[in-house]
Amino acid sequence: MKPSIPKGTRDFSPEQVAKRNYIFHIIREVFELFGLQPIETPSMENRETLMGKYGEEGDKLIFNVLNSGDYLKELRSTNEEVQNLDSTKSIHLISEKALRYDLTIPFARYVVMHQHEINFPFKRYQIQPVWRADRPQKGRYREFYQCDGDIVGSYSLLNEVDFVQIFDQVFNKLGIRAIIKINNRKVLAGLAEACNEKDNLTNITAAIDKLDKIGMDKVKIELKERGLSSKSIDIIEQYLSISGDAEQKIVAIEKLITHSETSKKGITELRTLFSYLKNNITIENSTIQFDGTLARGLNYYTGTIFEVKAQDVSIGSIAGGGRYDDLTGLFGLPNIPGVGISFGADRIYDVLEELNIFPPSLTGNSTRVLFANFDLKSEKYLLPVIQKVRQKGISAELYPDQDKLKKQFKYADNKKIPFVVVVGPEEIKSEKFSLKNMQTGDQEEISLEQMLAKFIDYKNKS
Amino acid sequence: MKPSIPKGTRDFSPEQVAKRNYIFHIIREVFELFGLQPIETPSMENRETLMGKYGEEGDKLIFNVLNSGDYLKELRSTNEEVQNLDSTKSIHLISEKALRYDLTIPFARYVVMHQHEINFPFKRYQIQPVWRADRPQKGRYREFYQCDGDIVGSYSLLNEVDFVQIFDQVFNKLGIRAIIKINNRKVLAGLAEACNEKDNLTNITAAIDKLDKIGMDKVKIELKERGLSSKSIDIIEQYLSISGDAEQKIVAIEKLITHSETSKKGITELRTLFSYLKNNITIENSTIQFDGTLARGLNYYTGTIFEVKAQDVSIGSIAGGGRYDDLTGLFGLPNIPGVGISFGADRIYDVLEELNIFPPSLTGNSTRVLFANFDLKSEKYLLPVIQKVRQKGISAELYPDQDKLKKQFKYADNKKIPFVVVVGPEEIKSEKFSLKNMQTGDQEEISLEQMLAKFIDYKNKS
Repeated sequence: MKPSIPKGTRDFSPEQVAKRNYIFHIIREVFELFGLQPIETPSMENRETLMGKYGEEGDKLIFNVLNSGDYLKELRSTNEEVQNLDSTKSIHLISEKALRYDLTIPFARYVVMHQHEINFPFKRYQIQPVWRADRPQKGRYREFYQCDGDIVGSYSLLNEVDFVQIFDQVFNKLGIRAIIKINNRKVLAGLAEACNEKDNLTNITAAIDKLDKIGMDKVKIELKERGLSSKSIDIIEQYLSISGDAEQKIVAIEKLITHSETSKKGITELRTLFSYLKNNITIENSTIQFDGTLARGLNYYTGTIFEVKAQDVSIGSIAGGGRYDDLTGLFGLPNIPGVGISFGADRIYDVLEELNIFPPSLTGNSTRVLFANFDLKSEKYLLPVIQKVRQKGISAELYPDQDKLKKQFKYADNKKIPFVVVVGPEEIKSEKFSLKNMQTGDQEEISLEQMLAKFIDYKNKS
Repeated sequence: MKPSIPKGTRDFSPEQVAKRNYIFHIIREVFELFGLQPIETPSMENRETLMGKYGEEGDKLIFNVLNSGDYLKELRSTNEEVQNLDSTKSIHLISEKALRYDLTIPFARYVVMHQHEINFPFKRYQIQPVWRADRPQKGRYREFYQCDGDIVGSYSLLNEVDFVQIFDQVFNKLGIRAIIKINNRKVLAGLAEACNEKDNLTNITAAIDKLDKIGMDKVKIELKERGLSSKSIDIIEQYLSISGDAEQKIVAIEKLITHSETSKKGITELRTLFSYLKNNITIENSTIQFDGTLARGLNYYTGTIFEVKAQDVSIGSIAGGGRYDDLTGLFGLPNIPGVGISFGADRIYDVLEELNIFPPSLTGNSTRVLFANFDLKSEKYLLPVIQKVRQKGISAELYPDQDKLKKQFKYADNKKIPFVVVVGPEEIKSEKFSLKNMQTGDQEEISLEQMLAKFIDYKNKS
């Protein structure tokens, strides 16, 4: 039997773990700089917590966990013919739990369950895997990490200002030049109103969202297919054709959508946000854009929406987010507004690989020195020496077997260990250590103190 | 609908996440000091990878993941009567994947799949959750973390020496006085041989394992029930009654078990290991014991076995492990010996809570200063100031809403934020910041430079 892993899942080698942790570490560090606190939720949620929250398509992508024990018991008691059993209708009989599909619904559930312990406005971040039964393809996996930050219990646009800075600082630290696109769902709602298609917002945003990928002509065809009138399509085309800088675009939108209170609110929010971003804070390394065509798929967004792309790599969005009026109403706690963002760790990983800007130190190996195993006597001589080296916080190994030195050096070379020390009878007598620098090939005989000083020096430099 | 989470699972608050990460961080740090490298494997494995590896009881505790789509398709095509459907026999028809039950089998699978990339001896660690459909009870959960370290591809007892030092250093750093118990499975195999019960080793070790809990008399009853002769039980009782220091116990065992080659090998291994531990390294803070009654449940152990307990808290083992001759044979790669250990993070958490020795800084809050939101003018005045504070690496928040100051101070108090700064029209005019130390209650008016210096000083001290 040749072992394999489920399709769409991955093993991570030491180097890959180190590189992923580097991304998580920077995201965590920046979230914490802005006062966000970590929480974690279980991998499995009750099925009823998740079902119906992600649309019909989403429901299908949820991984269900089979009940333990005699899981067919309830199915048997239906007395249905096997041939008539329906997968969708039967599922609640054999599965109570499911793997989480995202971190947002579990967070909403968390807020409701812990509402009396929570200090609002609650700023939390959460970095955990999620699971989706999507068809696996390049860059799309069935298990992947989401890195979410949310601030709930506050309507203030200062929270949006925080998240723009968080985007900017995370990508600046990673060395990625980011384009942060901003729009407001209220303006899109106003556009739907202007088309007399208030209840058709989802159809409009779904088509608009594809502008980047399919172009204006095909968006118009799609809008027509989704039942919009020529007049409406005309208004939407005008809207999508608006150009200029942020203020020019906003003015043009004001002229196009005149009778919608919702749109006016959205315009005010956009102006306030852009004024903060322009006049009150400094952006390090990102380009901030107002993009009226940005729609974002998720229906729970009601205000500001964000999408971040990498300037130098052609790949989908690497982060996104938005404001919602009512995250927890579904679970019986109304009037908790908030704003949240999510980093796509896998895409970010691919961007860093493509730009080749992962720090070279991220090899997944922490060993600084390998002590070769020459013979039994040197083994015993070296054990307390290695303990001294480790006490200085320097990662060290004694090669465990008395293999040929060539093999031991090969091991160090493969593992990218920078120093190898050999101690034979000569060295024991002279109380010296034969130290080889694996990068330069230099070799020297030095005392214990000199050796320790060298390792500490190397550690401080790297 | 009142939301809940599946029984046996947990939400973790910011403080709990911080405390757990503290444990993981120390374990990771020590593993890396000894040259172990991190890997990660998927949460889901193919069911066939896991089934049959944990005994019949273990198989029942595995969480199976339902196939996606029309998962009943194959079951329907059996044309079986619904009433006759058997849960165990049908499972392969509706579930291909399962959640990992431990980190050992996925690691074995990893070694086989990646054997050509791996640099042997391979030293890896892995800190990830596992899932078991166990009956939940105090301290036992259905999702919990394992922290495993293994060295594979080497028979050397120096690897055992490393793991004893890793136990010692992890628990020393955590502030737990550990008792590290050591035994050798070959000696237990020799005991079974001495009883003429070579094939009955599992029954003998299962009974012996309970000595601590149920006492000698009940162990004897259990051995009888498991079919052992009075003569055998007599030998086992003599074995279990051996006392003295490590060397005295070993001598007594040599006298009791005279004709077993396996036992002799085990004795030699124990002597070698204890000689290293006594003569060649220094143990920081743990007590090392040879314990001939230690058995460890897992059947794949073939040499040294470890179990660690906390000296000052009465709780089960907090870590354990052992040597195995053949980890990967099950997956078609024979002759890969190794030794591995596992830390029980949940138990360790409970020990640290009970001893009340978590560092007090682990509150889950990183914010050092809250800037109160006085009015719109102060908001805009403060935004660039806060950016300067954050640039120094000091976590800061601007309270997002213009709520009453009392409410804002309450927020800081609840979140354990050490400083609150209020800036009103007076302070803007005088270019001063009104800073309150939330612990002492002291209040002062200081300049931006003084304030930054104060925060940096506070940061360096904590």
